[in-house]
Amino acid sequence: MAEPLLSSLPAPGARSASLADVAHLAGVSTGTVSRTLSRPDMISEPTRLRVMDAVERLGYVPNGAARALSMRRTLTVGAIVPRFGSSSFPAMVQALETTLAAAGYTLLLSAPDPRPSYETSILRALLERGVDAVALLGAEQPQQVFAMLAANRTPFVTMWAPPEAGVHCVGFDEYAAAALVVDHLADHGHRRIGYIGGRTADSERARRRLRDLSLAIAKRGLTLCDDALAETEHGFQEGFDAMNTIAQRQPAITAVVCGSDYLAAGALAALDQAGIEVPRRLSVASFNDNDFAAFLHPPLTSVRLPIREIGEQAGERLLAQLRGLDAPVARALPVTLMQRSSTGPVPD
Amino acid sequence: MAEPLLSSLPAPGARSASLADVAHLAGVSTGTVSRTLSRPDMISEPTRLRVMDAVERLGYVPNGAARALSMRRTLTVGAIVPRFGSSSFPAMVQALETTLAAAGYTLLLSAPDPRPSYETSILRALLERGVDAVALLGAEQPQQVFAMLAANRTPFVTMWAPPEAGVHCVGFDEYAAAALVVDHLADHGHRRIGYIGGRTADSERARRRLRDLSLAIAKRGLTLCDDALAETEHGFQEGFDAMNTIAQRQPAITAVVCGSDYLAAGALAALDQAGIEVPRRLSVASFNDNDFAAFLHPPLTSVRLPIREIGEQAGERLLAQLRGLDAPVARALPVTLMQRSSTGPVPD
Repeated sequence: MAEPLLSSLPAPGARSASLADVAHLAGVSTGTVSRTLSRPDMISEPTRLRVMDAVERLGYVPNGAARALSMRRTLTVGAIVPRFGSSSFPAMVQALETTLAAAGYTLLLSAPDPRPSYETSILRALLERGVDAVALLGAEQPQQVFAMLAANRTPFVTMWAPPEAGVHCVGFDEYAAAALVVDHLADHGHRRIGYIGGRTADSERARRRLRDLSLAIAKRGLTLCDDALAETEHGFQEGFDAMNTIAQRQPAITAVVCGSDYLAAGALAALDQAGIEVPRRLSVASFNDNDFAAFLHPPLTSVRLPIREIGEQAGERLLAQLRGLDAPVARALPVTLMQRSSTGPVPD
Repeated sequence: MAEPLLSSLPAPGARSASLADVAHLAGVSTGTVSRTLSRPDMISEPTRLRVMDAVERLGYVPNGAARALSMRRTLTVGAIVPRFGSSSFPAMVQALETTLAAAGYTLLLSAPDPRPSYETSILRALLERGVDAVALLGAEQPQQVFAMLAANRTPFVTMWAPPEAGVHCVGFDEYAAAALVVDHLADHGHRRIGYIGGRTADSERARRRLRDLSLAIAKRGLTLCDDALAETEHGFQEGFDAMNTIAQRQPAITAVVCGSDYLAAGALAALDQAGIEVPRRLSVASFNDNDFAAFLHPPLTSVRLPIREIGEQAGERLLAQLRGLDAPVARALPVTLMQRSSTGPVPD
């Protein structure tokens, strides 16, 4: 609109515009304004445009709480994603948000520091706000979480959870991802392997990754070397420190697998500074295929995990449940090995 | 609680627990349950514990919409942060969320693809949901956005906005940040400088950064070289491509400034692959000091921006407004040059 808007608006601090104000400005009844907002398909195009113009000019906002009460739904979806600011989760959350927003839902995001029983109180707060559905990270939740969801009959999904864990889990096959890395290294002649991963005491994802990596390593007859194992937080500095600690022990390994590209980026920097050539003396492979993986030194071989796809599918499964449709059978989302120059043949 | 919880819970699909169910299980009146939930300070400790135990066991959740209506507030804060999944914003949003959560507020996050007028419709949706306050990214919003906030008397802040733009802006001094980089390069003898930045047509932040960098360069009598300028998206691949394009022109520069560490990481990878040594032949400096900056090859000189602090202060300013307090005077948050090995003396 080219004409000035502010002239027809109430001054800051004045009372909010009412339904009657909108009706007056549009020259229609308050009933017509209500119908325009609730059932625009019932209203003629010229009238609808006139009402919406008045709504715009007055900055009129219907009382959401009252409307939600009468509709018995809030068009909000809660998500609980611990510590997403320092992980691969922002891309997943953004895909979830985009998918839900396209269907008119607003995401309520909680990003708690992970500590026992905190998720339960956050879930309670989200349910009290009347969220229509909930997205959780991981299938291993406190029993109380699933009990509250069942008691309130709230649709939910768990993201980054193994599909075999249940119908509402959206994730990928962790063993297939581990086997991609292990087969790649075994095919290049590597026999003795180190691993820098997330803390298994804190995270089901870290436990699954270590378990499935160990299985894949055993299946190919390789060795996961005790003196080349480290658990830490998923950070650059943490990967740097863990790699230095392992290097000082001079273990008889030719390859290191990292639980995330954050850890691998730190490990590569440590090896660079220590003058240990990658991949000539040591191969480094990782999981996630974060956006920076191809720009490390050297570019990092990493298993591409379906991070964005998990968010999209989680959103679609929630929308299906909200529409009363049967959720489609959960399938593992695909994983791919992105082969780059941080891995190579075993040294002679 | 050590005893099994599920035995006393309704089966999935059963009706939700009511206030009366809680009262029955706790052996108190429904009025006592209501008071325990709304005014716990009025209830004796043993009764309160008994009621809360029943609430836990039954997974009882008060009707949030009805309660919000009676309280006339929803304890929610909306945030509109375009495309946060591919930027430095997750750390800022997490700090905002943590600050608000500590005061009992839930964050409603919208992460729209940036396109004209979209923010207005998202703001309308948030106001309809009855958010108590709103956090926006940047001070340059459509006029309609501020008109709607004023008409609804909704407290708000703008994050990553210059403090001089207004009392509700939380950010840093962009010129001071630019001067830190330029002074550092000038002190090392650099005279001719290139720049790879964000798209100025799309982003007020990109415009401010280019403007203030140009000012700082002019002030030191240096030259921003036309044939070493590029605008692109803030991504690794985009920085890689832009650096390659500039390098092919063989401009007479000795330093390149990047508008973000994402661009700089891509640029460093391009220079590495092209065999152009950093900083021996070309110095590279950047803005943000993202967590990966110290782990690039070579470690990246970057201006540390107060990303987390912006989120925290935005949360605190919103809470002050919600409590009816005067918001403290906006001050520019501090910026620091993190000097690493991607910058050095000008080549002979």
